[in-house]
Amino acid sequence: MKSNLYKTALLKDVIPFWSKNSIDNDHGGYFSCLTREGEVYDTDKFIWLQGRQAWMYSYLYNNVAQNKEWLEIAKNGIDFLRKYGMDKNGNFYFSLTREGKPLISPYNIFSDCFATMAFGQYAKATGDKEIEELARKTYYNILERRDNPKGKYEKSTGNRPLRNFSLPMILSNLVLELESVLPEEEVALRIDDSVKEVMDVFLQKDGLIYENLNPDGSFSDSFEGRLINPGHGIEAMWFMMDIAERKNDKKLLDEAVQVVLNTLEFGWDKQYGGIFYFLDIKGYPPQQLEWDQKLWWVHLEALVALSKAYSLTKNQKVWDWYEKVHEYSWNRFADKKNGEWFGYLNRQGEPHLSLKGGKWKGCFHVPRAMYQCWQAFEKIENTK
Amino acid sequence: MKSNLYKTALLKDVIPFWSKNSIDNDHGGYFSCLTREGEVYDTDKFIWLQGRQAWMYSYLYNNVAQNKEWLEIAKNGIDFLRKYGMDKNGNFYFSLTREGKPLISPYNIFSDCFATMAFGQYAKATGDKEIEELARKTYYNILERRDNPKGKYEKSTGNRPLRNFSLPMILSNLVLELESVLPEEEVALRIDDSVKEVMDVFLQKDGLIYENLNPDGSFSDSFEGRLINPGHGIEAMWFMMDIAERKNDKKLLDEAVQVVLNTLEFGWDKQYGGIFYFLDIKGYPPQQLEWDQKLWWVHLEALVALSKAYSLTKNQKVWDWYEKVHEYSWNRFADKKNGEWFGYLNRQGEPHLSLKGGKWKGCFHVPRAMYQCWQAFEKIENTK
Repeated sequence: MKSNLYKTALLKDVIPFWSKNSIDNDHGGYFSCLTREGEVYDTDKFIWLQGRQAWMYSYLYNNVAQNKEWLEIAKNGIDFLRKYGMDKNGNFYFSLTREGKPLISPYNIFSDCFATMAFGQYAKATGDKEIEELARKTYYNILERRDNPKGKYEKSTGNRPLRNFSLPMILSNLVLELESVLPEEEVALRIDDSVKEVMDVFLQKDGLIYENLNPDGSFSDSFEGRLINPGHGIEAMWFMMDIAERKNDKKLLDEAVQVVLNTLEFGWDKQYGGIFYFLDIKGYPPQQLEWDQKLWWVHLEALVALSKAYSLTKNQKVWDWYEKVHEYSWNRFADKKNGEWFGYLNRQGEPHLSLKGGKWKGCFHVPRAMYQCWQAFEKIENTK
Repeated sequence: MKSNLYKTALLKDVIPFWSKNSIDNDHGGYFSCLTREGEVYDTDKFIWLQGRQAWMYSYLYNNVAQNKEWLEIAKNGIDFLRKYGMDKNGNFYFSLTREGKPLISPYNIFSDCFATMAFGQYAKATGDKEIEELARKTYYNILERRDNPKGKYEKSTGNRPLRNFSLPMILSNLVLELESVLPEEEVALRIDDSVKEVMDVFLQKDGLIYENLNPDGSFSDSFEGRLINPGHGIEAMWFMMDIAERKNDKKLLDEAVQVVLNTLEFGWDKQYGGIFYFLDIKGYPPQQLEWDQKLWWVHLEALVALSKAYSLTKNQKVWDWYEKVHEYSWNRFADKKNGEWFGYLNRQGEPHLSLKGGKWKGCFHVPRAMYQCWQAFEKIENTK
């Protein structure tokens, strides 16, 4: 049974891998740079990954079992983030030294998104009012900064203003994460706003999600405007499905499922299998040298979107795609020898970086997807 | 005869490819984004590549033949750079729209380096005093900015200050390029300074060039500190050989040649052939996802360094490496069907981006290397 596959992977393989290898007992926080075997090869602390791991353990505590060890591991990250993560204006750094000294300034608002996500789940787990307040404060700070998220680090002159997909997409998920700490009307407003941005603006007439658009929502014929990031589009669609389910919105659900299918059709590598990382909508060479690589998170988000879509629609096309992505992913990303998943395959499907964690890969996409797929398959199996 | 191979490639293939496809007759400057066939697929103007192409055509005019068409093509870039390239403080933008409106701000001092290189060669070709003055002004502006080249766009906090190899390396070549427009003592001073920086600081005890060091010249055990960029080290070594030849410095010459051999030994892919793009000195996963790709410029710079080294030393080990790199490069990068060279091969040695030009590849490394190898082989053949 697939629910069992995912549950076992989550609880017997993935989470133990991080619990064993990533905790910095001396300075707090987590190591994210782990070799294939789990050895720490670099000690820098990247705020995205600190926030994501603290979120993950809090989430498991809230949703799987009130396991004290998980809460302690979550607290280890929360304390580190609270103590060292912010500058004096409450903006989160991008990275810190092992000891917590800032290395890279707050040029990147996603650090703040993942920190507040962690604070929200942890406050829910513990009832800690101070952390709850910090979650709210950070959330509103993100909203305030959203029109100029990079501040003085913005290198664009403004002569080609572009609307970027990442923030509306993340907000659509973040606001649900923070539901227990935000006012009801803010949650409702933000959900409606995000759905509109994602489905009425960034979803273009060809049925695909674009990463960047002109301010009026039209196509920008530039490197940024032509960029399609299939994994990103697919991930956003399961956020939309969650909202559709919650609002009982069949139209939104069906649209989201269709976009997943469109994106897989467009983004699947017909020669070697797997989903491309980046594509140019006109078929021109993308500027990203890694465009043809197969990334762990892209395939995991596809497994989540497809299992969720199937649990909600029983659509046969969805199931066919699920099986195809499942076969590709479990055979190539899962590391049978040392546990967890490889992060980076070349186009041919072989790991070309053996790391289990690094600057961008931490304790997040693998366990989150294992949990989401486990839940989706329980639903599927229970209604059979 | 190899001199003929390079001469013919330069004059019958590479330069005609750019002369035919890259000139923007409507707005001035050059298109650099060209497909395999030479079709323009994006019209943004990247200052690195505008400067490099204007330099290349001026250089050919000065060194190969006083061809009027070449000088006109050079002027087309020089005029565009002078008119649109700078902000009001004389700092060069990173990129412009086709029409010359700034897109990306002057966060990157290498734009200025390639612009002044172009101004220097063009002034030499034409005697244009205004351009000569602009070359000088831009050069001194680079020196002024060199301790904080990114200005307000610098995201590092200063808690891990690192010395970077790129600028000393580029200055060692730039100052020779600008010899005709700079005072003699500035040239002499800068040469000595650069040689010291490159050979006494960035060349470490293991015989390799490091990209980043602690301010005191010691090893920094961080992603940046562990980074080896073999192509960069090899390119710098032929700059050193030029200086050694000019100063008749046999010790410097022998050292530089040895570093080329060390770097090839370290950076050569024993499994698939070719030179890796990035490596971690400790063998850990580099943060660059493109680390195992084989790039055109890396291999061309190796061909230049090796042919130059052989012409100056007749060292058999150098010749063996030359043949190995030659065989690899000419069979894989040179596009027999449409001319010019592919830019990006995957680890296995197949083009994974078919472009002839893009954001980073323009009319520079291929023709410069063809010229340099042509000259080196003429010398080799004449002394046989």
